Amino acid sequence: MAGRSQEELQGVTLLGNQGTQYKFQYAPEILESFDNKHPGRDYFVKFNCPEFTSVCPMTGQPDFGTVYISYIPDVKMVESKSLKLYLFSFRNHGDFHEDCMNIIMNDLIKLMNPRYIEVWGKFTPRGGISIDPYCNWGRPGTKYEQMAEYRLMNHDLYPEKVDNR
Amino acid sequence: MAGRSQEELQGVTLLGNQGTQYKFQYAPEILESFDNKHPGRDYFVKFNCPEFTSVCPMTGQPDFGTVYISYIPDVKMVESKSLKLYLFSFRNHGDFHEDCMNIIMNDLIKLMNPRYIEVWGKFTPRGGISIDPYCNWGRPGTKYEQMAEYRLMNHDLYPEKVDNR
Amino acid sequence: MAGRSQEELQGVTLLGNQGTQYKFQYAPEILESFDNKHPGRDYFVKFNCPEFTSVCPMTGQPDFGTVYISYIPDVKMVESKSLKLYLFSFRNHGDFHEDCMNIIMNDLIKLMNPRYIEVWGKFTPRGGISIDPYCNWGRPGTKYEQMAEYRLMNHDLYPEKVDNR
Amino acid sequence: MAGRSQEELQGVTLLGNQGTQYKFQYAPEILESFDNKHPGRDYFVKFNCPEFTSVCPMTGQPDFGTVYISYIPDVKMVESKSLKLYLFSFRNHGDFHEDCMNIIMNDLIKLMNPRYIEVWGKFTPRGGISIDPYCNWGRPGTKYEQMAEYRLMNHDLYPEKVDNR
Amino acid sequence: MAGRSQEELQGVTLLGNQGTQYKFQYAPEILESFDNKHPGRDYFVKFNCPEFTSVCPMTGQPDFGTVYISYIPDVKMVESKSLKLYLFSFRNHGDFHEDCMNIIMNDLIKLMNPRYIEVWGKFTPRGGISIDPYCNWGRPGTKYEQMAEYRLMNHDLYPEKVDNR
Amino acid sequence: MAGRSQEELQGVTLLGNQGTQYKFQYAPEILESFDNKHPGRDYFVKFNCPEFTSVCPMTGQPDFGTVYISYIPDVKMVESKSLKLYLFSFRNHGDFHEDCMNIIMNDLIKLMNPRYIEVWGKFTPRGGISIDPYCNWGRPGTKYEQMAEYRLMNHDLYPEKVDNR
Amino acid sequence: MAGRSQEELQGVTLLGNQGTQYKFQYAPEILESFDNKHPGRDYFVKFNCPEFTSVCPMTGQPDFGTVYISYIPDVKMVESKSLKLYLFSFRNHGDFHEDCMNIIMNDLIKLMNPRYIEVWGKFTPRGGISIDPYCNWGRPGTKYEQMAEYRLMNHDLYPEKVDNR
Amino acid sequence: MAGRSQEELQGVTLLGNQGTQYKFQYAPEILESFDNKHPGRDYFVKFNCPEFTSVCPMTGQPDFGTVYISYIPDVKMVESKSLKLYLFSFRNHGDFHEDCMNIIMNDLIKLMNPRYIEVWGKFTPRGGISIDPYCNWGRPGTKYEQMAEYRLMNHDLYPEKVDNR
Amino acid sequence: MAGRSQEELQGVTLLGNQGTQYKFQYAPEILESFDNKHPGRDYFVKFNCPEFTSVCPMTGQPDFGTVYISYIPDVKMVESKSLKLYLFSFRNHGDFHEDCMNIIMNDLIKLMNPRYIEVWGKFTPRGGISIDPYCNWGRPGTKYEQMAEYRLMNHDLYPEKVDNR
Amino acid sequence: MAGRSQEELQGVTLLGNQGTQYKFQYAPEILESFDNKHPGRDYFVKFNCPEFTSVCPMTGQPDFGTVYISYIPDVKMVESKSLKLYLFSFRNHGDFHEDCMNIIMNDLIKLMNPRYIEVWGKFTPRGGISIDPYCNWGRPGTKYEQMAEYRLMNHDLYPEKVDNR
Ligand SMILES: [Ca+2]
Ligand SMILES: [Ca+2]
Ligand SMILES: [Ca+2]
Ligand SMILES: [Ca+2]
Ligand SMILES: [Ca+2]
Ligand SMILES: [Ca+2]
Ligand SMILES: [Ca+2]
Ligand SMILES: [Ca+2]
Ligand SMILES: [Ca+2]
Ligand SMILES: [Ca+2]
Ligand SMILES: [Ca+2]
Ligand SMILES: [Ca+2]
Ligand SMILES: [Ca+2]
Ligand SMILES: [Ca+2]
Ligand SMILES: [Ca+2]
Ligand SMILES: [Ca+2]
Repeated sequence: MAGRSQEELQGVTLLGNQGTQYKFQYAPEILESFDNKHPGRDYFVKFNCPEFTSVCPMTGQPDFGTVYISYIPDVKMVESKSLKLYLFSFRNHGDFHEDCMNIIMNDLIKLMNPRYIEVWGKFTPRGGISIDPYCNWGRPGTKYEQMAEYRLMNHDLYPEKVDNR
Repeated sequence: MAGRSQEELQGVTLLGNQGTQYKFQYAPEILESFDNKHPGRDYFVKFNCPEFTSVCPMTGQPDFGTVYISYIPDVKMVESKSLKLYLFSFRNHGDFHEDCMNIIMNDLIKLMNPRYIEVWGKFTPRGGISIDPYCNWGRPGTKYEQMAEYRLMNHDLYPEKVDNR
Repeated sequence: MAGRSQEELQGVTLLGNQGTQYKFQYAPEILESFDNKHPGRDYFVKFNCPEFTSVCPMTGQPDFGTVYISYIPDVKMVESKSLKLYLFSFRNHGDFHEDCMNIIMNDLIKLMNPRYIEVWGKFTPRGGISIDPYCNWGRPGTKYEQMAEYRLMNHDLYPEKVDNR
Repeated sequence: MAGRSQEELQGVTLLGNQGTQYKFQYAPEILESFDNKHPGRDYFVKFNCPEFTSVCPMTGQPDFGTVYISYIPDVKMVESKSLKLYLFSFRNHGDFHEDCMNIIMNDLIKLMNPRYIEVWGKFTPRGGISIDPYCNWGRPGTKYEQMAEYRLMNHDLYPEKVDNR
Repeated sequence: MAGRSQEELQGVTLLGNQGTQYKFQYAPEILESFDNKHPGRDYFVKFNCPEFTSVCPMTGQPDFGTVYISYIPDVKMVESKSLKLYLFSFRNHGDFHEDCMNIIMNDLIKLMNPRYIEVWGKFTPRGGISIDPYCNWGRPGTKYEQMAEYRLMNHDLYPEKVDNR
Repeated sequence: MAGRSQEELQGVTLLGNQGTQYKFQYAPEILESFDNKHPGRDYFVKFNCPEFTSVCPMTGQPDFGTVYISYIPDVKMVESKSLKLYLFSFRNHGDFHEDCMNIIMNDLIKLMNPRYIEVWGKFTPRGGISIDPYCNWGRPGTKYEQMAEYRLMNHDLYPEKVDNR
Repeated sequence: MAGRSQEELQGVTLLGNQGTQYKFQYAPEILESFDNKHPGRDYFVKFNCPEFTSVCPMTGQPDFGTVYISYIPDVKMVESKSLKLYLFSFRNHGDFHEDCMNIIMNDLIKLMNPRYIEVWGKFTPRGGISIDPYCNWGRPGTKYEQMAEYRLMNHDLYPEKVDNR
Repeated sequence: MAGRSQEELQGVTLLGNQGTQYKFQYAPEILESFDNKHPGRDYFVKFNCPEFTSVCPMTGQPDFGTVYISYIPDVKMVESKSLKLYLFSFRNHGDFHEDCMNIIMNDLIKLMNPRYIEVWGKFTPRGGISIDPYCNWGRPGTKYEQMAEYRLMNHDLYPEKVDNR
Repeated sequence: MAGRSQEELQGVTLLGNQGTQYKFQYAPEILESFDNKHPGRDYFVKFNCPEFTSVCPMTGQPDFGTVYISYIPDVKMVESKSLKLYLFSFRNHGDFHEDCMNIIMNDLIKLMNPRYIEVWGKFTPRGGISIDPYCNWGRPGTKYEQMAEYRLMNHDLYPEKVDNR
Repeated sequence: MAGRSQEELQGVTLLGNQGTQYKFQYAPEILESFDNKHPGRDYFVKFNCPEFTSVCPMTGQPDFGTVYISYIPDVKMVESKSLKLYLFSFRNHGDFHEDCMNIIMNDLIKLMNPRYIEVWGKFTPRGGISIDPYCNWGRPGTKYEQMAEYRLMNHDLYPEKVDNR
C-alpha cells in the first residue's frame, strides 16, 4: 500500500504550491476537491478552524470565531488548504454569524455533494453576549436526511461553560 | 453574495446606535427581531449570556447567573443587541430564578414565534446551594413539540462539577 | 410583570428570616414548599449542593460529598433555604451513602409530589475508593415513570475522572 | 429514621475492623455484602477506584489503572472496604488488563447477583499506548440484559483526551 | 484463577522480546493476535495512541496525531506491542489522514475479524486547520452492522474545543 | 478555647441581621470592622468577590468583574457581610474599572488602617478587550511600604489565558 | 533499610486503632507526634485537608473549607491520623475562619515546635464572597523567622480563579 | 464620590461614539488617552486582547494571536476603545510577530509615557511551531528601568503547555 | 554528531534488556548510571514518576503517589530504566511517605553525587488527608548548598487544588 | 511604518519556498537567521514545538516530546521555518533526551550568538517514567551569564501534574 499516487492527487493545485494568493473578500471559487478512496464506507471527516474572522455588516467591526465542520463524503472530498483559503476570504466580508455558517455549508454542499454535513460557529462576545449558530444537512430523500434531523434534535444538550474570560 | 443588505437589516434600530438607553426594570418591549434568510432549513442559534443579574424578591439581595438560550428560528430572529438590553432590564427586578427563566422564554416566544426554544440559567450559590432552572418549548402540534419533550427527557444527564469555588 | 407578589410567597417562612435554627440531626420536617407559577409546562430545576456531610454508621467518621438534585415540579416546589437546612440536618446523622440519597429523594417526593426527580451523591474516598449513588423516580402510571427508566438506562455513561487528588 | 441499625449491618466484618489483613494474591473470598434497603427501586451505585495495580503476565512488570464499577443492586450490595481489599489482592497477580476487568465483573456478579453491572479499567501506557477495557452484564432474560446491550452500543462515543502526560 | 498461562500466551512473540525491530515504512505484517478468553460476552477494548506520526503525500512534511481505536473482540484480539510497532511503521509513510485511518481499520479487521471496530484520528493543524477523521465498521449481516450505523449517527455531537494552542 | 465571644463580636451589626438593606449607589459608610485577635502576627486575609458589577460612566452600560482583595490586618479587620453590601453599592454607580479598584482600596485603608492591602479587578470584555487593574499599598514608613513595592514589581508575570469564552 | 521499626513508631496510638472516637468539639489534646528520622536536613511536609468544617460563631451556620498545612520538622512530626481527628473536632465549634487558621497553627507549634510552619484555609462563599486566611511562623531568632517573613511577602501573587461554581 | 465627571472624560472621543471607523492598515494616530486620577500611586492596568490578527510579510497569510499589555501609568492612560481600534488596524498589515509586539509597545510609550510597560504576544502555530514574543520597558534613569530588567530576568519560567490543539 | 556511541552507553545493562527482573522489596543496588556528556554546563533533568506505590508500616495497607525527581548532574547520571526498577522495589516495602522520599534522595546522592537534587512525593489520601513530602540537597560547601536553601525557602507557595476527587 | 521590507528579509530562503526538502537525519546546516530590528532592547522570543520526535540510541524505539525554546536575541534571530526543518531532522536520529536538548541549544548558540537562551524538553513516558531535561546559557562575561544562573536556580519549582494519561 503505497499511499496516494500522483494520479489520485490530480485536481489538487493549492497544496504545496508556493505562490498562494490570499483573498480577503468572499471567494467560493477557491474551493477544490479530490476523490474519496473509501466510498463504500460511511465515515466522518472533521475540520477544526479556530482562525475564522469576518466583519459586522452594520458596524464594520471585526468578529472572531471558531468553526467546526463535519461531513460524510460521497464521491468528492474538500481539500484542506483550499478550505483554509476559502475561510480566509471572509476576512473583510460583512455578514451576520448566522448567515456566514449557512453560506459556508451551502458552498461545501455545492462543491462535494456530501452524504451529510454540519457547520458550527462559536464566536467571541460583543456586549457580553456571544452567538453560536449550528446548521446541518443530509442528502434529501436518503437516510442522511433523517440523520440530519436526528442530530439537530440532539444538538448541544450540554452547552459549554462560557464566562467571557 | 454581498452579505446582509440595508434592506435586510431594516427594523434593526439598536445595533451600532450611539444613544443606547440602559433600562434596569423589566422591559420586554426592548426586544427587536430581523428576518431569517434561511427559513427552508432547521438550524440552531445559541446565545451565551454570562452577565445576567437580578434581585431576590424576598430579601432584595442581588443574584448572578449565566443564561444559555438556544432556538430554531422560523420567520423572525432576535437581534443580539436588543437581547442584551432586554437581559440588562432584569438588573433591579425581583423574582425567583425559576420564574425569570420562564419569563425570558415566554417573551422570546412572543417576539419570534420560533420553531423550538430552550433557556437554561446557572446561578451562583446562596447559603452553599446554587439553582439551575431549565425550560424549553416546541411549537404545539408540530414535530418541535416532540423535540421539546425529547430534549427535556435527555436534559443534563451529566451535571457539571460544582464546588462553590 | 412584577415578579413574585407577597401572596405568591406565603408559606415561605425561612428565607430572609433572622432567627434561623441549625439542626444537626435528621429533620425532614424542616422542608418548605411554595407554588409553581408555570404548572402548564414541564421544566427542570437543579440544586447543586457541595456542602453535604454525614457520619459513617459503623465507625462514626464524618463523610463528605456533593449532592445534585434535579426535578420537574408539579404543583409544589421546594424552597431552597429550607432545603439547605434539611441537608445540614444530616450533619451528625449516621447512615451509608446509598441510604442517604434514597432518603433525601423519598422526603422530597413526600413534600412536593413532583412529576420527576433524581438525586446523585458524589463522595470523597475512604481507603482509596469513593462511592457515588444515584437514584431517580417518575410518578407511577405516567410518562414520567418511563422517563425515570430511560434516564437510569442512560445514567453516567461517562464517569468523571477521579484520581483522589 | 435512625440510619442503619446494628442488625442491618450484620455480615459486615471488615469495616472498622482493626486487624485488617492485606492479601497481594488474587483472593475473591474477601468480598462481603450487606442487604439493600431499597430493593423496590432501581438505582445505581458507582465505585471510583484509582489505586488498582497488577503485574504483566509475560514480563512481570507492574501495571497501574483506575477502575470504575457501577451496578444496580438487587438483594445484596458489596461492602466497600471488602471491595478495596479484593482489588488490593490483584497487586502481585499476573494477567492482561482485558482479563482482569472480566474477572472482577464475574466475581461481583457471583457475590451480589445484581440486576446490572459494568466495569471499566483505564490503564497507564506501556510503549506509548494505553489500554481501556470495558465490560458489562445484565441479568439474562430480564430488561437489564437489553440495558447492557444498549449501554455497550452507546459506550464511550467521546474518548477522553489522552496525551501520556 | 492463575492469570494467563504460557499456553494461552502462545503466538505472542513481540511482548517482552529484546531484539525488537522498528520499521518506519508501512508494515501490516507486524500485527499479532492472541485468543479472547471471554468470547461469550460483548465487551470493548480501547487503545489510546498519542504517538502517531506519518508524512504528507504531497509535501513530505511530517504530520502528528492521536489515534483512538475501540473494538469488540470475537475470537482474536490484537496484541498491544505489535500494534505499537505497526503504528510506528507509518513513520515515513506518505498518505492523507483520512486514508491512514481507513487503512488502519482495514488491517485490524483483517487481523482479528472483530464484531465491531472504530478508529478516530485527531491531528495537529497545518495552516490553522486540523483534521479529525473517524471511521467504524460492524460485521455485515449482524447486529454489529446496525451498531456501526448508530454510532456514526451519534458521532461527535460535542466537538472538543480546539484553539491551536 | 471557646471561639469568638459576644463581646469580641460587638460592633458587628449586619452579620445575621434580618432586615438587611441593599443600596445600589456607592455607600462607603456601610463598611464595618471588628478586632483582630492575633495582632502579634502578620497574616493575610483574602476575599474572593466574583459578583462585582458597576456601570460605564460614559455609556451607562453595566460592567462585570471579579475582585480579589488581600490584606494584612493591624488592629481592625473588615467584616465580610458589610464588605459584601459595600461592593453591592457599586451596582448603579458609574466609573472606570481603574478608578473603582483605587476607590475600594482607599475606603478599606480608611476603615482598617491595615499594614498592607491589595485589590485586583478582572473584568469581562467590551469590544474584544478586557481590563484588569491592580493596586496595592503598604503603610508609609514601615516595611510594608517596601512589601508593596516588591509585590508590584513581581505582579502578574504569568497573565492567565483569556480567550473571551 | 527495613522501614520504620516498632520502636520508631511508639507514641503513635491512633493509626490502625479500631476504637477511634470522633470528637466534634475543639479538642487539641488529640494531636500525637512521632520522631523525625531525618533531623539533619530541612525538608517540607504538606497536608492537604479538603474536609474541614466548622460553624459560624454568630449565625450557627456550618462553614466548609480546604486547609493546607506545610511545615519543616525539627525533632517531632505530627501523626496524620491524629491530625485528621483534631481537624474533625472543629465540626461543631463556632469561630471565624481567620481565628480557626491561627488556632490550628498555634496548636501545631505547641505540639511539634517545628522550624517553620504555615496554614492556609480556603472557604466556600457566603453571600457571594469567600474568605481565604493564610498565616505562617518561623522559630524566633533563627533563619526560619526570616523565611516566614519572606514567604508572607511572596504570598499568593496569583490568586486562583474563583467563580463560585 | 460621583465617578468620572464630564470634564474628566474630555479627550475621549471614540467611546460610545456611533460612527466608528474601522481601519485595517496600521494607524497609530487612532490612540487616545485620558488623565490618570491616581498619579500618586504606582498601579498596574492590564489589557487582555485575544482578537489580534495581522498578515505574514513574506507569504501574505493571516496570523492570529492573543496580546497581553500591562503598564503602570504616569499622567496619561490609554483609552480602551481607541486601543481596540488601533489593534484592529494591524488586520491587513504585514510584519513578523516579533516586530509587531515591539511596534505596539513603542506606540504606547509615545502616547502615554508610562512609568513601566510590557507587551506579550502568543500566536497560533504555522508548520507545528508557535511564536510568543515578549518585550518590556521602564522609564530610563528611574527605578522602573530596573523593574523592566528584573521582570525580563524572571520572564516565563513556566511556559504554558502547548499541544497545538 | 552521531548520537551516543556504544562506548558512551557501556555500564547501561538494563535498558533494552529482555530478562528484566522486577523486585518488590527495597533494592537500591538496582540503580545504574552513565556518563554526563555535558559536564561543563549546569542543567536540570527531571523524572516524572506517577506509578509509585509502597505499604504503610503500621497497617500494611498499600499507598500510592507520584514522585517528581529533579537534579543537576555532575559526572554521573541515573539511567531511567534502572530508576524505574528501583522505584518498583518499594512495592511491598513498609515505610512512611516522609521516610521514603528521604531514602530515595539519599540513594540517588550516593549513586550520582549530583550537584543538586530534589524529590517531591504527592500521595493519595487516607482518612481524607493526603501527605506531600519534599526534600532537597546541594553539595555541601558549594553554591549548590545555597541553591538548596533558596529552593526550600521558595517551595510550594501555591499548593495545587486538592479536593480528593 | 511599513513592516519588514524585502531587504530586511534577505537571507530568509525557506519561508514561503515551495520546494521544501524534509531531512530526517540530524542536519544543523538547515538553520537560517535574519536581522534583529530592535537590538537596542532586551526582549524574549519563545518557540513552542510540540512535534519533536527522535529515536532511542539503544533500542531504536521512537520517542516523542514537546520542546520549548526561549532566547533574547542580539544581532541575529532564528527564522522559524528553518527551525522547524532543523527539529524535523532529529526524526530518525538516535540520542538520549538529555543529549538532544543540549545539542539543540549548542546549535542555536552557534547560529545566533544570542544574549541568553534556554531549551526545555518534555517527553512522553517509557515504562511509566517521563524525562524533562532543561538547559540554559548566558553569554559569558556578561550579565546574561548571571541571568542563566538565576533562572536555573529558580527552574521548575512547580512541576506540572503528570499522570501518564
Ligand atoms: Ca469561569
Ligand atoms: Ca467548581
Ligand atoms: Ca469551582
Ligand atoms: Ca481528579
Ligand atoms: Ca482531583
Ligand atoms: Ca493528558
Ligand atoms: Ca486548546
Ligand atoms: Ca492546545
Ligand atoms: Ca481557549
Ligand atoms: Ca477562556
Ligand atoms: Ca471561560
Ligand atoms: Ca470556579
Ligand atoms: Ca492544548
Ligand atoms: Ca481535585
Ligand atoms: Ca497528566
Ligand atoms: Ca493526564
